[in-house]
Amino acid sequence: MQVPRGLEGVIVASTELTKIDGQAGRLVYRGYDVTELAGIVPYEAIAHLLWFGQLPTKEQLGKLQSQLASNRRLPPVVTEFLEQAARVAEPLSLLQTSISILGGLEETKAASIIDASLALTARMPTILATGYRLRSSQAPLEPRSDLGHVANYLYMLTGSVPKQEHVRALDAYFTLLADHGLGASTFVARIAASTLTDVYSAVVAAISALKGPLHGGAPIFVWEMLQAIGNRENARDWLTDHLAKGDRIMGFGHRIYRTEDPRSRVLKRLAKEIVEPRLFELASTVEAEARELLRKEHPERAIDTNVEFYSSLVLHAVGIPPELFTCTFASARSVGWTAHIIEQRADNRLFRPEAEYKGKLDLKVHESPVKTVA
Amino acid sequence: MQVPRGLEGVIVASTELTKIDGQAGRLVYRGYDVTELAGIVPYEAIAHLLWFGQLPTKEQLGKLQSQLASNRRLPPVVTEFLEQAARVAEPLSLLQTSISILGGLEETKAASIIDASLALTARMPTILATGYRLRSSQAPLEPRSDLGHVANYLYMLTGSVPKQEHVRALDAYFTLLADHGLGASTFVARIAASTLTDVYSAVVAAISALKGPLHGGAPIFVWEMLQAIGNRENARDWLTDHLAKGDRIMGFGHRIYRTEDPRSRVLKRLAKEIVEPRLFELASTVEAEARELLRKEHPERAIDTNVEFYSSLVLHAVGIPPELFTCTFASARSVGWTAHIIEQRADNRLFRPEAEYKGKLDLKVHESPVKTVA
Repeated sequence: MQVPRGLEGVIVASTELTKIDGQAGRLVYRGYDVTELAGIVPYEAIAHLLWFGQLPTKEQLGKLQSQLASNRRLPPVVTEFLEQAARVAEPLSLLQTSISILGGLEETKAASIIDASLALTARMPTILATGYRLRSSQAPLEPRSDLGHVANYLYMLTGSVPKQEHVRALDAYFTLLADHGLGASTFVARIAASTLTDVYSAVVAAISALKGPLHGGAPIFVWEMLQAIGNRENARDWLTDHLAKGDRIMGFGHRIYRTEDPRSRVLKRLAKEIVEPRLFELASTVEAEARELLRKEHPERAIDTNVEFYSSLVLHAVGIPPELFTCTFASARSVGWTAHIIEQRADNRLFRPEAEYKGKLDLKVHESPVKTVA
Repeated sequence: MQVPRGLEGVIVASTELTKIDGQAGRLVYRGYDVTELAGIVPYEAIAHLLWFGQLPTKEQLGKLQSQLASNRRLPPVVTEFLEQAARVAEPLSLLQTSISILGGLEETKAASIIDASLALTARMPTILATGYRLRSSQAPLEPRSDLGHVANYLYMLTGSVPKQEHVRALDAYFTLLADHGLGASTFVARIAASTLTDVYSAVVAAISALKGPLHGGAPIFVWEMLQAIGNRENARDWLTDHLAKGDRIMGFGHRIYRTEDPRSRVLKRLAKEIVEPRLFELASTVEAEARELLRKEHPERAIDTNVEFYSSLVLHAVGIPPELFTCTFASARSVGWTAHIIEQRADNRLFRPEAEYKGKLDLKVHESPVKTVA
């Protein structure tokens, strides 16, 4: 059976996790519109929703929060690896490798899928903060179990208990990015899971795909673009020059959304609340100018900001360094990846597609120049 | 567009690398029947064939062999990781993590896709042998650049220059296992590559999938089954009991081959040449009895030995410890994975399939028990 390249429009799984309506610009987690969840219920409740099927009661939420909090510490072999490698490897690679180490430890082997998902989600912020502090010559901090998942991440990065408005904005970001159907990383996680590999390995595979600039790499490029433009007066000329050279404008367009990405709308509102006004105005000017220019160039379809455009502002404003933008996306997405792994395993069929052979046939080895094993 | 579960029979890519004819029981690499290549041209020539499109001239082969030989050493950060983790993690996890570390190093970032493929292929046996020797309380050995790829692997494991007949058998194994179309690990590597992630990460993703027992985990189970049966007189009763309990017989059947797996035929011949006679007779008795019993149970289709059945004997006979069986498969497959990554990147389209949403709709957050971010 022939299907479109890149499997575009091809339904490869059924899911009860996330519905993406690209025409209407809607994103739904297990029945709830994501724009109504973000900033209203905490990220740990989103984890409960995606892993267990419903929003938690107050008691269930408290239990899950304390389970996550008690799983934050890293085993020494991971900390030692980070101490050795923090300065010779980039953060996303440190994350990939650390999860790979965690998955290989004897002590994690006996864990159930849900326990592994929980431990992995709990430890990602610790890995990121530890790696970052080592890279920037600061002593790593112990996690604080009295703080929520997102607040503890900011605390471990900066050493200060974060402002409530920053926690709220980053928590909303984590919710908005928690799942998004079968992007390449999640698709890879499901295929890996279909071999009955362990949860950690399936997440390592997902991170390997997220490292690709076509998938996870854009928020830092948006940030660099805004830095390069510098001030709103330069926006139109900079964008015009850029488009004339045939370059892509970062943070615009999505293969699925044919209208505004609903996450972008919420992130813009959050950015307005917490970003310094000059920077917000620069970004909204770039947005307006780029939309106008892109509409002239592609009158057949609207090209709006995607989730990455205002993400970069929100992440910057709450104190996430640009080198951790994609890693923070990975940390938010961990509940989505693991929820897909859980779903795949619950009704599994090994992925084993085919490739059409278009190469040569009937060549003879004895006519070739090289013979006999050395 | 709806397609069969697990993408069975769905063509998701075109390839000039490998043709699998499941009806005729044929496997072809770029026009050459694999049964005519194995043991005739060295594995490095297969790497040349898959990476560059044709079998090498003598000069090209010599150049590639010396490039591989000069890339075998590991950077200190990998060796240090292996020293710390060898005793707390299994070999396949050590391999996955080591490749992840290699991919994260600044020095590997500038490498071209082909240079990365070459370095990665060259270093896999070093990682496996170093990890194994550390696990078994032996000092790791330096690679020997005067030995071929496969001979050096055996040398680094055992500390002795291997017998010619063992090198020849393992070299043939490496060729037979070098590629096999879109198994889950190779499919995952291509999807990861489609995000423009680095070669190392795409291979890490492949190893993550290979770790799953439905994909890469069977040769050790074949070995354990043969140990459990013990002698040929026990074979029929053991197999009958096993089938009566509804258990699978290891090393039999393949989703694609509807007749004998051509690799199995070559491996059986190799096994006969190098395996102790008592063990070979045990295996061939188990093969004959299992085929007969499986044909009674499934008269509608032949179920023959797959590549894993006689692999376990060949790997054992040349001195590979059972805990390295799947890792050795990974090492052989590294040229196939990287060849698919190169092919994917040469004419790329990001993989982004869809999932059909079958969950709830129109739930309201304000009716849920949990509200407001902590």
